[in-house]
Amino acid sequence: MKSFTILTPTRTALVNITSHVSKAVTESGIRNGAVVVYVPHTTCGITINEAADPDVAQDILMQLDKTVPRGRMYRHREGNADAHIKTSLLGTSATVLIEDGQLVLGTWQGIFLGEFDGPRNRKVYLQFLS
Amino acid sequence: MKSFTILTPTRTALVNITSHVSKAVTESGIRNGAVVVYVPHTTCGITINEAADPDVAQDILMQLDKTVPRGRMYRHREGNADAHIKTSLLGTSATVLIEDGQLVLGTWQGIFLGEFDGPRNRKVYLQFLS
Amino acid sequence: MKSFTILTPTRTALVNITSHVSKAVTESGIRNGAVVVYVPHTTCGITINEAADPDVAQDILMQLDKTVPRGRMYRHREGNADAHIKTSLLGTSATVLIEDGQLVLGTWQGIFLGEFDGPRNRKVYLQFLS
Repeated sequence: MKSFTILTPTRTALVNITSHVSKAVTESGIRNGAVVVYVPHTTCGITINEAADPDVAQDILMQLDKTVPRGRMYRHREGNADAHIKTSLLGTSATVLIEDGQLVLGTWQGIFLGEFDGPRNRKVYLQFLS
Repeated sequence: MKSFTILTPTRTALVNITSHVSKAVTESGIRNGAVVVYVPHTTCGITINEAADPDVAQDILMQLDKTVPRGRMYRHREGNADAHIKTSLLGTSATVLIEDGQLVLGTWQGIFLGEFDGPRNRKVYLQFLS
Repeated sequence: MKSFTILTPTRTALVNITSHVSKAVTESGIRNGAVVVYVPHTTCGITINEAADPDVAQDILMQLDKTVPRGRMYRHREGNADAHIKTSLLGTSATVLIEDGQLVLGTWQGIFLGEFDGPRNRKVYLQFLS
């Protein structure tokens, strides 16, 4: 298992972590299999989506805010219930395939940490499976 | 592969199954890898979220009810279309990492079965990967 | 790793790809483990849900359209921001268990490609893990 830490910039953000994952895959020496990208947190998740136009990430965050608004209508008293709910919608991990020692991503795909209660230091764990 | 069955208490519920998964990991003898926690159903899912404050689970269920209301506006004639839709939003599995024979979960994380059409007996399958 | 291509029929569709995955599992010779079903795209996803009544798939698509409407309120200028957002809600992969050389699916479960910006040719990658 490998891990890295990132500092997220704002309360909500989609942070592109593809290069971190790609570097770890190379260092691991794994040739074929998959990597599970996992966050041990409950107010951020992982998603794979378009990395070329940053507007896509903004639209995802905006829609999540619209569907799951921040506010006082929740029971959880810490003011971040919306962040927990968004985390369950995204999921806390993504599994990405590896072939010939390389991440198998589509042309437009990037791996993102979806921050919903930042800014914070977030850990990302990587487990390699074959 | 291992499996266990749980009886869910109400129509919708987030049931903490972490101890079942943890026990199975120990029994399996696996040291490093991952476990796929999978439900073979179409009206319940799996999610990882906060296990400390039970209000978080209630908020997740409440928001899912708000976004995907139960009712007669669906084509599926069994009255549980909302449960199917919520299942696709959560997903039918979670992959959790294993290191040194232990589940790698964050301080606040628990593994939950998200029941959307209970009460029912639900099967959970566990597959260990390395 | 294996792959196949499908042509999706309409802008949005849930296309049942279970038989393609099942056939590939048989051909792979894998006896026990899991298969990761992965799409290298950013406007379609993978979900597991009921395959018996096609109304369930229609209800899922209808609800996603309602929660994430198509329109001009997004920043992404290609007119398919809704498709990107729906992809993050579903996820780009599903992990399905394999036992005794067979996919482990529940009675009602099928594996679907969720198309949100078709019709298009879509690639599906399969990685076998044990």
